[in-house]
Amino acid sequence: MAGGHGHPYSPAELELPGFVPQRLSPGEILAPFLGASLLVALAVWLISGRCGGGGSPRTDRLLMCWWAFTGLTHILLAGAFLLAPGFFSRESPNYFDELFKEFSKGDSRYAARDTAILALEVVTIGFKGPASLLAVYAIASRKSYSHILQFAVSLSQLYGCLFYFVTAYLAGFNFWASPFYFWAYFVGANISWVVVPTLVAARSWKKISAAFRAEKVKIR
Amino acid sequence: MAGGHGHPYSPAELELPGFVPQRLSPGEILAPFLGASLLVALAVWLISGRCGGGGSPRTDRLLMCWWAFTGLTHILLAGAFLLAPGFFSRESPNYFDELFKEFSKGDSRYAARDTAILALEVVTIGFKGPASLLAVYAIASRKSYSHILQFAVSLSQLYGCLFYFVTAYLAGFNFWASPFYFWAYFVGANISWVVVPTLVAARSWKKISAAFRAEKVKIR
Repeated sequence: MAGGHGHPYSPAELELPGFVPQRLSPGEILAPFLGASLLVALAVWLISGRCGGGGSPRTDRLLMCWWAFTGLTHILLAGAFLLAPGFFSRESPNYFDELFKEFSKGDSRYAARDTAILALEVVTIGFKGPASLLAVYAIASRKSYSHILQFAVSLSQLYGCLFYFVTAYLAGFNFWASPFYFWAYFVGANISWVVVPTLVAARSWKKISAAFRAEKVKIR
Repeated sequence: MAGGHGHPYSPAELELPGFVPQRLSPGEILAPFLGASLLVALAVWLISGRCGGGGSPRTDRLLMCWWAFTGLTHILLAGAFLLAPGFFSRESPNYFDELFKEFSKGDSRYAARDTAILALEVVTIGFKGPASLLAVYAIASRKSYSHILQFAVSLSQLYGCLFYFVTAYLAGFNFWASPFYFWAYFVGANISWVVVPTLVAARSWKKISAAFRAEKVKIR
Protein backbone atom coordinates (compact mmCIF):
# COMPACT_ATOMS: atom_id res chain seq x y z
CA MET A 1 0.00 0.00 0.00
CA ALA A 2 2.75 2.46 0.95
CA GLY A 3 4.37 4.41 -1.90
CA GLY A 4 7.96 5.60 -2.24
CA HIS A 5 7.52 8.01 0.66
CA GLY A 6 6.31 5.36 3.11
CA HIS A 7 2.63 6.35 3.07
CA PRO A 8 -0.39 5.53 0.89
CA TYR A 9 -1.45 9.15 0.24
CA SER A 10 -1.45 11.49 -2.71
CA PRO A 11 0.56 13.48 -3.72
CA ALA A 12 3.40 10.96 -3.29
CA GLU A 13 5.87 13.79 -2.52
CA LEU A 14 4.02 14.54 0.72
CA GLU A 15 6.47 14.17 3.61
CA LEU A 16 5.10 12.39 6.69
CA PRO A 17 8.17 11.65 8.84
CA GLY A 18 7.73 8.66 11.14
CA PHE A 19 4.50 7.49 9.48
CA VAL A 20 3.07 4.44 11.31
CA PRO A 21 1.07 2.23 8.91
CA GLN A 22 -2.66 1.87 9.54
CA ARG A 23 -3.62 -1.20 11.61
CA LEU A 24 -7.43 -1.10 11.54
CA SER A 25 -9.23 -2.06 8.33
CA PRO A 26 -11.72 0.37 6.72
CA GLY A 27 -14.55 -1.80 8.10
CA GLU A 28 -13.13 -1.70 11.63
CA ILE A 29 -13.06 2.10 11.38
CA LEU A 30 -16.42 2.64 9.69
CA ALA A 31 -18.48 0.19 11.80
CA PRO A 32 -17.93 1.87 15.21
CA PHE A 33 -18.61 5.29 13.66
CA LEU A 34 -21.87 4.16 12.05
CA GLY A 35 -22.84 2.14 15.11
CA ALA A 36 -22.26 5.01 17.55
CA SER A 37 -24.09 7.41 15.22
CA LEU A 38 -27.10 5.10 14.99
CA LEU A 39 -27.13 4.64 18.78
CA VAL A 40 -27.11 8.41 19.33
CA ALA A 41 -29.89 8.92 16.78
CA LEU A 42 -31.95 6.07 18.27
CA ALA A 43 -31.53 7.41 21.82
CA VAL A 44 -32.59 10.93 20.76
CA TRP A 45 -35.53 9.50 18.79
CA LEU A 46 -36.80 7.49 21.78
CA ILE A 47 -36.25 10.22 24.39
CA SER A 48 -37.86 12.91 22.21
CA GLY A 49 -40.92 10.69 21.80
CA ARG A 50 -41.55 10.62 25.56
CA CYS A 51 -40.70 14.11 26.77
CA GLY A 52 -42.99 17.12 26.99
CA GLY A 53 -46.40 15.44 27.07
CA GLY A 54 -46.93 13.21 24.05
CA GLY A 55 -43.59 14.20 22.55
CA SER A 56 -42.56 16.44 19.67
CA PRO A 57 -43.85 16.19 16.07
CA ARG A 58 -42.13 13.57 13.92
CA THR A 59 -40.09 16.05 11.82
CA ASP A 60 -38.82 17.80 14.95
CA ARG A 61 -37.72 14.45 16.37
CA LEU A 62 -35.86 13.61 13.14
CA LEU A 63 -34.21 17.04 13.24
CA MET A 64 -33.14 16.48 16.86
CA CYS A 65 -31.50 13.18 15.76
CA TRP A 66 -29.67 15.02 12.96
CA TRP A 67 -28.47 17.86 15.20
CA ALA A 68 -27.28 15.45 17.93
CA PHE A 69 -25.44 13.36 15.32
CA THR A 70 -23.86 16.29 13.47
CA GLY A 71 -23.04 18.16 16.71
CA LEU A 72 -21.24 15.20 18.28
CA THR A 73 -19.48 14.40 14.97
CA HIS A 74 -18.32 18.04 14.64
CA ILE A 75 -17.04 18.20 18.23
CA LEU A 76 -15.48 14.72 18.54
CA LEU A 77 -13.81 14.56 15.12
CA ALA A 78 -12.65 18.21 14.98
CA GLY A 79 -11.53 17.96 18.63
CA ALA A 80 -9.60 14.72 18.12
CA PHE A 81 -8.02 16.14 14.95
CA LEU A 82 -6.97 19.46 16.49
CA LEU A 83 -5.56 17.73 19.60
CA ALA A 84 -3.48 15.19 17.62
CA PRO A 85 -0.97 17.11 15.43
CA GLY A 86 1.10 13.96 14.81
CA PHE A 87 -1.69 11.38 14.56
CA PHE A 88 0.00 9.60 11.64
CA SER A 89 3.21 8.94 13.59
CA ARG A 90 1.84 7.83 16.96
CA GLU A 91 3.37 4.52 18.11
CA SER A 92 0.12 3.40 19.81
CA PRO A 93 -2.54 4.97 17.61
CA ASN A 94 -6.05 5.36 19.05
CA TYR A 95 -9.29 4.91 17.12
CA PHE A 96 -9.37 8.53 15.90
CA ASP A 97 -5.75 8.41 14.68
CA GLU A 98 -6.69 5.39 12.58
CA LEU A 99 -9.86 7.09 11.33
CA PHE A 100 -7.86 10.14 10.16
CA LYS A 101 -5.32 7.87 8.46
CA GLU A 102 -8.14 6.18 6.58
CA PHE A 103 -9.88 9.47 5.71
CA SER A 104 -6.60 10.99 4.51
CA LYS A 105 -6.73 8.55 1.60
CA GLY A 106 -9.57 10.71 0.33
CA ASP A 107 -7.99 14.02 1.36
CA SER A 108 -4.33 13.99 2.38
CA ARG A 109 -4.64 17.59 3.60
CA TYR A 110 -5.70 16.01 6.93
CA ALA A 111 -2.40 14.12 7.24
CA ALA A 112 -0.50 17.16 5.92
CA ARG A 113 -2.24 19.38 8.51
CA ASP A 114 -3.09 21.85 5.76
CA THR A 115 -3.88 25.32 7.13
CA ALA A 116 -7.23 25.53 5.28
CA ILE A 117 -8.34 22.31 7.02
CA LEU A 118 -7.18 23.70 10.37
CA ALA A 119 -9.15 26.93 9.78
CA LEU A 120 -12.24 24.89 8.88
CA GLU A 121 -11.93 22.62 11.94
CA VAL A 122 -11.50 25.61 14.27
CA VAL A 123 -14.85 27.05 13.04
CA THR A 124 -16.36 23.55 13.31
CA ILE A 125 -15.43 22.97 16.95
CA GLY A 126 -15.79 26.61 17.97
CA PHE A 127 -19.21 27.32 16.45
CA LYS A 128 -20.92 24.58 14.40
CA GLY A 129 -20.53 21.77 16.98
CA PRO A 130 -21.80 23.57 20.09
CA ALA A 131 -24.52 25.39 18.07
CA SER A 132 -25.76 22.01 16.71
CA LEU A 133 -26.15 20.64 20.24
CA LEU A 134 -27.89 23.88 21.25
CA ALA A 135 -30.32 23.21 18.37
CA VAL A 136 -31.31 19.87 19.96
CA TYR A 137 -32.15 21.72 23.19
CA ALA A 138 -33.86 24.59 21.31
CA ILE A 139 -36.16 22.22 19.39
CA ALA A 140 -36.94 20.14 22.51
CA SER A 141 -37.88 23.19 24.57
CA ARG A 142 -39.54 25.00 21.64
CA LYS A 143 -37.36 28.09 21.96
CA SER A 144 -38.34 31.10 19.85
CA TYR A 145 -34.81 31.13 18.35
CA SER A 146 -35.00 27.47 17.30
CA HIS A 147 -35.48 28.09 13.55
CA ILE A 148 -33.07 31.00 13.12
CA LEU A 149 -30.42 28.96 14.99
CA GLN A 150 -30.99 25.92 12.74
CA PHE A 151 -30.85 28.18 9.67
CA ALA A 152 -27.60 29.84 10.84
CA VAL A 153 -25.85 26.51 11.52
CA SER A 154 -27.10 24.97 8.24
CA LEU A 155 -25.86 27.96 6.22
CA SER A 156 -22.52 27.72 8.09
CA GLN A 157 -22.28 24.03 7.18
CA LEU A 158 -22.97 24.88 3.53
CA TYR A 159 -20.30 27.61 3.53
CA GLY A 160 -17.96 25.16 5.31
CA CYS A 161 -18.41 22.64 2.47
CA LEU A 162 -17.96 25.38 -0.16
CA PHE A 163 -14.73 26.46 1.60
CA TYR A 164 -13.59 22.82 1.83
CA PHE A 165 -14.11 22.11 -1.86
CA VAL A 166 -12.87 25.50 -3.14
CA THR A 167 -9.63 25.39 -1.10
CA ALA A 168 -9.02 21.82 -2.35
CA TYR A 169 -9.47 23.09 -5.90
CA LEU A 170 -7.17 26.08 -5.35
CA ALA A 171 -4.44 23.95 -3.76
CA GLY A 172 -4.15 21.52 -6.68
CA PHE A 173 -7.07 19.06 -6.44
CA ASN A 174 -4.76 16.03 -6.14
CA PHE A 175 -5.28 14.85 -2.56
CA TRP A 176 -6.93 11.47 -3.10
CA ALA A 177 -5.14 8.15 -3.47
CA SER A 178 -7.48 6.99 -6.28
CA PRO A 179 -10.82 7.87 -7.96
CA PHE A 180 -12.48 5.45 -5.49
CA TYR A 181 -11.32 7.53 -2.52
CA PHE A 182 -12.26 10.76 -4.32
CA TRP A 183 -15.87 9.59 -4.67
CA ALA A 184 -16.21 7.58 -1.43
CA TYR A 185 -14.47 9.95 1.01
CA PHE A 186 -13.80 13.40 -0.49
CA VAL A 187 -17.27 13.62 -2.09
CA GLY A 188 -19.28 10.85 -0.40
CA ALA A 189 -18.41 11.55 3.24
CA ASN A 190 -19.10 15.29 2.79
CA ILE A 191 -22.20 15.27 0.62
CA SER A 192 -24.55 14.70 3.60
CA TRP A 193 -23.41 18.11 4.88
CA VAL A 194 -24.57 19.65 1.61
CA VAL A 195 -27.89 17.81 1.20
CA VAL A 196 -29.24 17.85 4.78
CA PRO A 197 -28.31 21.50 5.57
CA THR A 198 -29.99 22.57 2.30
CA LEU A 199 -33.22 20.83 3.34
CA VAL A 200 -33.06 22.13 6.93
CA ALA A 201 -32.29 25.71 5.81
CA ALA A 202 -35.20 25.63 3.33
CA ARG A 203 -37.57 24.35 6.03
CA SER A 204 -36.50 26.98 8.58
CA TRP A 205 -36.82 29.72 5.92
CA LYS A 206 -40.43 28.64 5.28
CA LYS A 207 -41.28 28.36 9.00
CA ILE A 208 -39.84 31.83 9.70
CA SER A 209 -41.75 33.40 6.80
CA ALA A 210 -44.93 31.69 8.04
CA ALA A 211 -44.40 33.11 11.55
CA PHE A 212 -44.24 36.65 10.12
CA ARG A 213 -47.36 36.06 8.01
CA ALA A 214 -49.17 34.87 11.17
CA GLU A 215 -47.96 37.93 13.10
CA LYS A 216 -49.21 40.23 10.31
CA VAL A 217 -52.66 38.62 10.34
CA LYS A 218 -52.80 39.11 14.14
CA ILE A 219 -51.87 42.81 13.88
CA ARG A 220 -54.69 43.41 11.39
CA MET B 1 6.26 54.12 -7.65
CA ALA B 2 6.85 51.11 -9.94
CA GLY B 3 9.29 48.48 -8.63
CA GLY B 4 11.71 46.30 -10.58
CA HIS B 5 8.81 44.45 -12.22
CA GLY B 6 7.14 47.59 -13.58
CA HIS B 7 4.27 47.71 -11.07
CA PRO B 8 3.80 49.13 -7.56
CA TYR B 9 2.42 45.91 -5.98
CA SER B 10 3.65 43.35 -3.50
CA PRO B 11 5.13 40.77 -3.82
CA ALA B 12 7.60 42.40 -6.26
CA GLU B 13 8.03 39.08 -8.13
CA LEU B 14 4.42 39.26 -9.29
CA GLU B 15 4.38 39.21 -13.10
CA LEU B 16 1.93 41.64 -14.73
CA PRO B 17 2.93 41.70 -18.42
CA GLY B 18 1.98 44.92 -20.20
CA PHE B 19 1.12 46.77 -16.98
CA VAL B 20 -0.19 50.28 -17.78
CA PRO B 21 0.58 52.70 -14.91
CA GLN B 22 -2.36 54.18 -13.03
CA ARG B 23 -3.49 57.59 -14.30
CA LEU B 24 -6.14 58.60 -11.77
CA SER B 25 -5.07 59.69 -8.29
CA PRO B 26 -6.49 57.91 -5.20
CA GLY B 27 -8.73 60.93 -4.64
CA GLU B 28 -10.04 60.83 -8.24
CA ILE B 29 -10.94 57.16 -7.67
CA LEU B 30 -12.38 57.43 -4.16
CA ALA B 31 -14.48 60.60 -4.68
CA PRO B 32 -16.77 59.21 -7.45
CA PHE B 33 -17.25 55.96 -5.46
CA LEU B 34 -18.18 57.80 -2.26
CA GLY B 35 -20.25 60.37 -4.17
CA ALA B 36 -22.25 57.74 -6.08
CA SER B 37 -22.75 55.72 -2.87
CA LEU B 38 -24.04 58.77 -1.01
CA LEU B 39 -26.37 59.63 -3.91
CA VAL B 40 -27.81 56.09 -3.93
CA ALA B 41 -28.28 56.14 -0.15
CA LEU B 42 -29.87 59.61 -0.27
CA ALA B 43 -32.27 58.60 -3.07
CA VAL B 44 -33.35 55.45 -1.21
CA TRP B 45 -33.74 57.45 2.01
CA LEU B 46 -35.97 60.05 0.36
CA ILE B 47 -38.08 57.59 -1.66
CA SER B 48 -38.59 55.24 1.32
CA GLY B 49 -39.84 58.20 3.37
CA ARG B 50 -42.68 58.90 0.91
CA CYS B 51 -43.88 55.45 -0.14
CA GLY B 52 -46.48 53.29 1.53
CA GLY B 53 -48.48 55.90 3.42
CA GLY B 54 -46.25 57.82 5.83
CA GLY B 55 -43.23 55.73 4.88
CA SER B 56 -41.29 52.99 6.66
CA PRO B 57 -39.81 53.19 10.18
CA ARG B 58 -36.45 54.96 10.41
CA THR B 59 -34.37 51.78 10.95
CA ASP B 60 -35.99 50.09 7.96
CA ARG B 61 -35.17 53.11 5.81
CA LEU B 62 -31.52 53.02 6.96
CA LEU B 63 -31.41 49.28 6.19
CA MET B 64 -32.82 49.90 2.69
CA CYS B 65 -30.01 52.43 2.11
CA TRP B 66 -27.44 49.85 3.25
CA TRP B 67 -28.85 47.04 1.09
CA ALA B 68 -29.09 49.29 -2.00
CA PHE B 69 -25.50 50.47 -1.46
CA THR B 70 -24.03 47.02 -0.76
CA GLY B 71 -26.07 45.35 -3.53
CA LEU B 72 -24.95 47.82 -6.20
CA THR B 73 -21.36 47.71 -4.92
CA HIS B 74 -21.37 43.88 -5.03
CA ILE B 75 -22.82 43.75 -8.55
CA LEU B 76 -20.92 46.64 -10.17
CA LEU B 77 -17.49 45.94 -8.67
CA ALA B 78 -17.65 42.12 -8.92
CA GLY B 79 -19.13 42.44 -12.42
CA ALA B 80 -16.50 44.90 -13.65
CA PHE B 81 -13.75 42.75 -12.11
CA LEU B 82 -14.96 39.46 -13.58
CA LEU B 83 -15.45 41.03 -17.04
CA ALA B 84 -11.97 42.63 -17.14
CA PRO B 85 -9.34 39.86 -16.91
CA GLY B 86 -6.58 42.18 -18.10
CA PHE B 87 -7.66 45.41 -16.39
CA PHE B 88 -4.06 46.29 -15.48
CA SER B 89 -2.84 46.21 -19.09
CA ARG B 90 -5.68 48.02 -20.89
CA GLU B 91 -4.40 50.85 -23.09
CA SER B 92 -7.45 53.04 -22.42
CA PRO B 93 -8.37 52.08 -18.85
CA ASN B 94 -11.88 52.89 -17.64
CA TYR B 95 -12.79 54.05 -14.14
CA PHE B 96 -13.12 50.49 -12.77
CA ASP B 97 -9.73 49.41 -14.19
CA GLU B 98 -8.16 52.34 -12.34
CA LEU B 99 -10.09 51.49 -9.16
CA PHE B 100 -8.81 47.88 -9.22
CA LYS B 101 -5.27 49.13 -9.84
CA GLU B 102 -5.55 51.34 -6.76
CA PHE B 103 -7.17 48.63 -4.63
CA SER B 104 -4.52 46.09 -5.70
CA LYS B 105 -2.03 48.14 -3.68
CA GLY B 106 -3.84 46.76 -0.64
CA ASP B 107 -4.34 43.27 -2.08
CA SER B 108 -2.40 42.36 -5.23
CA ARG B 109 -4.45 39.16 -5.55
CA TYR B 110 -6.89 41.33 -7.54
CA ALA B 111 -4.22 42.22 -10.13
CA ALA B 112 -2.89 38.63 -10.03
CA ARG B 113 -6.44 37.30 -10.63
CA ASP B 114 -5.98 34.88 -7.72
CA THR B 115 -8.43 31.96 -7.87
CA ALA B 116 -9.65 32.53 -4.28
CA ILE B 117 -10.63 36.10 -5.23
CA LEU B 118 -12.38 34.81 -8.37
CA ALA B 119 -14.33 32.25 -6.29
CA LEU B 120 -15.34 34.99 -3.85
CA GLU B 121 -16.45 37.38 -6.60
CA VAL B 122 -18.52 34.67 -8.30
CA VAL B 123 -20.50 34.14 -5.07
CA THR B 124 -20.72 37.93 -4.67
CA ILE B 125 -22.25 38.62 -8.09
CA GLY B 126 -24.22 35.37 -8.23
CA PHE B 127 -25.85 35.52 -4.79
CA LYS B 128 -24.96 38.39 -2.44
CA GLY B 129 -25.52 41.22 -4.94
CA PRO B 130 -28.98 40.21 -6.29
CA ALA B 131 -30.10 39.06 -2.81
CA SER B 132 -29.13 42.47 -1.35
CA LEU B 133 -31.29 44.29 -3.91
CA LEU B 134 -34.10 41.83 -3.21
CA ALA B 135 -33.76 42.85 0.47
CA VAL B 136 -34.52 46.49 -0.46
CA TYR B 137 -37.74 45.33 -2.15
CA ALA B 138 -38.56 42.89 0.69
CA ILE B 139 -38.25 45.60 3.36
CA ALA B 140 -40.22 48.15 1.30
CA SER B 141 -43.11 45.74 0.68
CA ARG B 142 -42.89 44.17 4.17
CA LYS B 143 -42.46 40.65 2.85
CA SER B 144 -42.66 37.84 5.39
CA TYR B 145 -39.21 36.60 4.26
CA SER B 146 -37.58 40.03 4.77
CA HIS B 147 -35.70 39.18 7.99
CA ILE B 148 -34.56 35.67 7.06
CA LEU B 149 -33.30 37.04 3.72
CA GLN B 150 -31.38 39.84 5.46
CA PHE B 151 -29.96 37.32 7.94
CA ALA B 152 -28.90 34.94 5.14
CA VAL B 153 -27.13 37.67 3.13
CA SER B 154 -25.46 39.12 6.24
CA LEU B 155 -24.15 35.70 7.29
CA SER B 156 -22.91 35.17 3.71
CA GLN B 157 -21.08 38.51 3.83
CA LEU B 158 -19.48 37.50 7.14
CA TYR B 159 -18.37 34.13 5.70
CA GLY B 160 -17.15 35.99 2.58
CA CYS B 161 -14.91 38.20 4.73
CA LEU B 162 -13.69 35.19 6.74
CA PHE B 163 -12.85 33.41 3.44
CA TYR B 164 -11.14 36.58 2.12
CA PHE B 165 -8.92 37.00 5.20
CA VAL B 166 -8.21 33.27 5.72
CA THR B 167 -7.19 32.65 2.08
CA ALA B 168 -4.92 35.74 2.23
CA TYR B 169 -3.32 34.29 5.36
CA LEU B 170 -2.92 30.84 3.78
CA ALA B 171 -1.39 32.24 0.59
CA GLY B 172 1.40 34.15 2.32
CA PHE B 173 -0.12 37.35 3.78
CA ASN B 174 2.19 39.60 1.73
CA PHE B 175 -0.14 41.26 -0.77
CA TRP B 176 0.01 44.93 0.33
CA ALA B 177 2.47 47.49 -0.92
CA SER B 178 2.96 48.97 2.59
CA PRO B 179 1.45 48.90 6.11
CA PHE B 180 -0.61 51.96 5.08
CA TYR B 181 -2.32 49.97 2.29
CA PHE B 182 -2.76 46.98 4.61
CA TRP B 183 -4.74 49.10 7.07
CA ALA B 184 -6.47 51.46 4.64
CA TYR B 185 -7.52 48.96 1.93
CA PHE B 186 -7.08 45.32 3.01
CA VAL B 187 -8.55 45.96 6.48
CA GLY B 188 -10.25 49.36 6.20
CA ALA B 189 -12.21 48.83 2.98
CA ASN B 190 -13.46 45.43 4.15
CA ILE B 191 -14.25 46.10 7.80
CA SER B 192 -17.68 47.65 6.99
CA TRP B 193 -18.70 44.23 5.64
CA VAL B 194 -17.84 42.73 9.05
CA VAL B 195 -19.39 45.40 11.29
CA VAL B 196 -22.68 46.15 9.46
CA PRO B 197 -23.59 42.48 8.67
CA THR B 198 -22.97 41.59 12.34
CA LEU B 199 -25.41 44.31 13.45
CA VAL B 200 -28.00 43.41 10.77
CA ALA B 201 -27.77 39.66 11.51
CA ALA B 202 -28.19 40.30 15.26
CA ARG B 203 -31.24 42.53 14.62
CA SER B 204 -32.90 39.98 12.28
CA TRP B 205 -32.20 37.17 14.77
CA LYS B 206 -34.01 39.17 17.48
CA LYS B 207 -36.94 40.10 15.21
CA ILE B 208 -37.38 36.45 14.12
CA SER B 209 -37.31 35.21 17.73
CA ALA B 210 -39.86 37.88 18.65
CA ALA B 211 -42.17 36.78 15.82
CA PHE B 212 -42.15 33.20 17.17
CA ARG B 213 -42.83 34.44 20.72
CA ALA B 214 -45.78 36.46 19.39
CA GLU B 215 -47.07 33.41 17.49
CA LYS B 216 -46.84 31.30 20.66
CA VAL B 217 -48.82 33.85 22.69
CA LYS B 218 -51.50 33.87 19.99
CA ILE B 219 -51.79 30.06 19.99
CA ARG B 220 -52.34 30.01 23.76
